Amino acid sequence: MTDHRLRYFDDYQPGTTYDCGSVRVSQDEMISFAKQFDPQPFHVDPAAAALGPFGGLIASGWHTGGLVMRQIVAHFLPAEASLGSPGLDEIRWPEPVRPGDTLRVRATVAEARRSQSKPDRGLVKTVIEAVNQDDTTVMRATAINFLRVRPESDA
Amino acid sequence: MTDHRLRYFDDYQPGTTYDCGSVRVSQDEMISFAKQFDPQPFHVDPAAAALGPFGGLIASGWHTGGLVMRQIVAHFLPAEASLGSPGLDEIRWPEPVRPGDTLRVRATVAEARRSQSKPDRGLVKTVIEAVNQDDTTVMRATAINFLRVRPESDA
Repeated sequence: MTDHRLRYFDDYQPGTTYDCGSVRVSQDEMISFAKQFDPQPFHVDPAAAALGPFGGLIASGWHTGGLVMRQIVAHFLPAEASLGSPGLDEIRWPEPVRPGDTLRVRATVAEARRSQSKPDRGLVKTVIEAVNQDDTTVMRATAINFLRVRPESDA
Repeated sequence: MTDHRLRYFDDYQPGTTYDCGSVRVSQDEMISFAKQFDPQPFHVDPAAAALGPFGGLIASGWHTGGLVMRQIVAHFLPAEASLGSPGLDEIRWPEPVRPGDTLRVRATVAEARRSQSKPDRGLVKTVIEAVNQDDTTVMRATAINFLRVRPESDA
């Protein structure tokens, strides 16, 4: 795990990009996730998928999102400061994720704004991208997170 | 499963809301999902969560999204016509999902537009909402889907 020294809201600098490591996704995992949450033929049935719109099995976008989130939690969202997320402004899956793909995740701080109503926290907007082994972007999203500001005692 | 007689792009009428059934989420499922994809303390550790920002364990938003997607696939996205999704325009989780909550899912067609470049399909934008047993909205998203138009032979 890369330690980017992100501890509190104060550490997030707009314009900075953080490498969040990479994750490989197997066909078995893709099918197992999709059977539970997104059982469309091109996510769960290799034979049907081969004849379908993507010419083969592809990951559910929700699975890709979960895999990306795991990297974000490990490298970008410190447990002691994270106060949850009200949502994402946009998610795009411009190209499919296929069995065996390795996704590299990076997070770029787009905006960091101290809360007026709750001065113990700030809001951080982050552009999250996942690119595969061929440098093709397979997911892009703008996430919103609330983060605790650095306690006075820790200044 | 409710059959809304949605078969092809042509059947999606802007302004119409479709009931997509309901799903109950247990604490064990919440923890198991979050351990894999979103291991923040308030998603995986009941004791830490009790002292955390939400006063108890809450579901990962990605888990809520997956559970909602399952209902959408079962009630709103016919396997024979679905051609995948380029993404979502917005996701919001206005209130937390807690262990034992039952979420009712509904989908309202916001826009349906035939593709100019690929006349075999159309684009449908849908506002998806999940409300809990207290009628509190816990998720809202605008999804984009490509759907095949009705074949001539089936007209």
